[in-house]
Amino acid sequence: MGKNGILAIISGPSGSGKGTAVEKLLQKGNYALSISATTRSPREYEVPGVHYFFYSKEQFEEMKKNGLLLECAEFCGNYYGTPKAYVEEQLQSGKNVILEIEVQGALQVKKIYPSAVLIFLIPPNLEELGRRLVQRGTEDKETINKRMHRAIEEMEFVDDYDYVVINDSIDTAVEDIDMILRAESMKCSRNKDIKKVFKGEI
Amino acid sequence: MGKNGILAIISGPSGSGKGTAVEKLLQKGNYALSISATTRSPREYEVPGVHYFFYSKEQFEEMKKNGLLLECAEFCGNYYGTPKAYVEEQLQSGKNVILEIEVQGALQVKKIYPSAVLIFLIPPNLEELGRRLVQRGTEDKETINKRMHRAIEEMEFVDDYDYVVINDSIDTAVEDIDMILRAESMKCSRNKDIKKVFKGEI
Repeated sequence: MGKNGILAIISGPSGSGKGTAVEKLLQKGNYALSISATTRSPREYEVPGVHYFFYSKEQFEEMKKNGLLLECAEFCGNYYGTPKAYVEEQLQSGKNVILEIEVQGALQVKKIYPSAVLIFLIPPNLEELGRRLVQRGTEDKETINKRMHRAIEEMEFVDDYDYVVINDSIDTAVEDIDMILRAESMKCSRNKDIKKVFKGEI
Repeated sequence: MGKNGILAIISGPSGSGKGTAVEKLLQKGNYALSISATTRSPREYEVPGVHYFFYSKEQFEEMKKNGLLLECAEFCGNYYGTPKAYVEEQLQSGKNVILEIEVQGALQVKKIYPSAVLIFLIPPNLEELGRRLVQRGTEDKETINKRMHRAIEEMEFVDDYDYVVINDSIDTAVEDIDMILRAESMKCSRNKDIKKVFKGEI
């Protein structure tokens, strides 16, 4: 049928395992990662068009004005955003595109792309999140406490999402996300030409 | 979490393999079949409360009046319907309940139960449906032609459904239906208490 892929937005509190989940999904083959645009300078190892699309502030503002960004935000004086063209190219090639962004950006995208699937990845519970952050051993007690409070705040947005996936085991969570997207691809709203296919007209 | 099951309605043209798909789903354990109510007389082998709930016309009309049926229809002078109580009991026990009914009934149920998942099962295409009906060898050419025309008519309702599953291989189709229901169980709208669970409050 040459069906379009699905735009999947994955968000979740720090410690939810988003990064690992996205990496593992990409290994499945039928997934592409959205490449962000930014106005910050490239770091030494960063390749334009692989890690980021690098633009000047003027270029970025021009893109925004022309509706060429799915979402954007300012962070530490630099702009970050998701260029529409790359995402659409990948979707049209049949790949599911993953966007790992925070809540505000996710809601911006959903407005432009109502067919985007919003997935909220969470640790099983607050206690377990605390345990994971302590185990990681990279932050002091105060930072861990801050992160846990931030997680509670972020959980307030779960109702704006379509699906909630509990990351108890990372492999199960990745299978769950994949399952959600496979189920979504069977939605009647994503198969508008099914009657013609059935009758052998296309 | 003691979560409720999902009400899954499966419809589809004759020859789509609904019956077999439902049988195979029931073998999965976490599924219950809805038991219909009828005013027709029990056949010799039929056990009340297993194959059907048998009621008099007066009892049936009383149930309908009191809103105790999810849907009902008349067929050959007898009433058929889906008693709400049995379905709700099974859902509350955490089982997914399967309702194999035709389009009109499905739409009636969706009105009362917006959280019901409507799945339309179809053969891959009209040609394959014809091949299957011929292979079955139980109907003459005229009946087969009628069925194929009826299938085209029924396909018009696919847009009223939530999902369309193509029965190319019956085992894959059953896995697809199961996958849809597992994905549905991760919908945020079906996990309203997730914030409390996360905080360890329940």
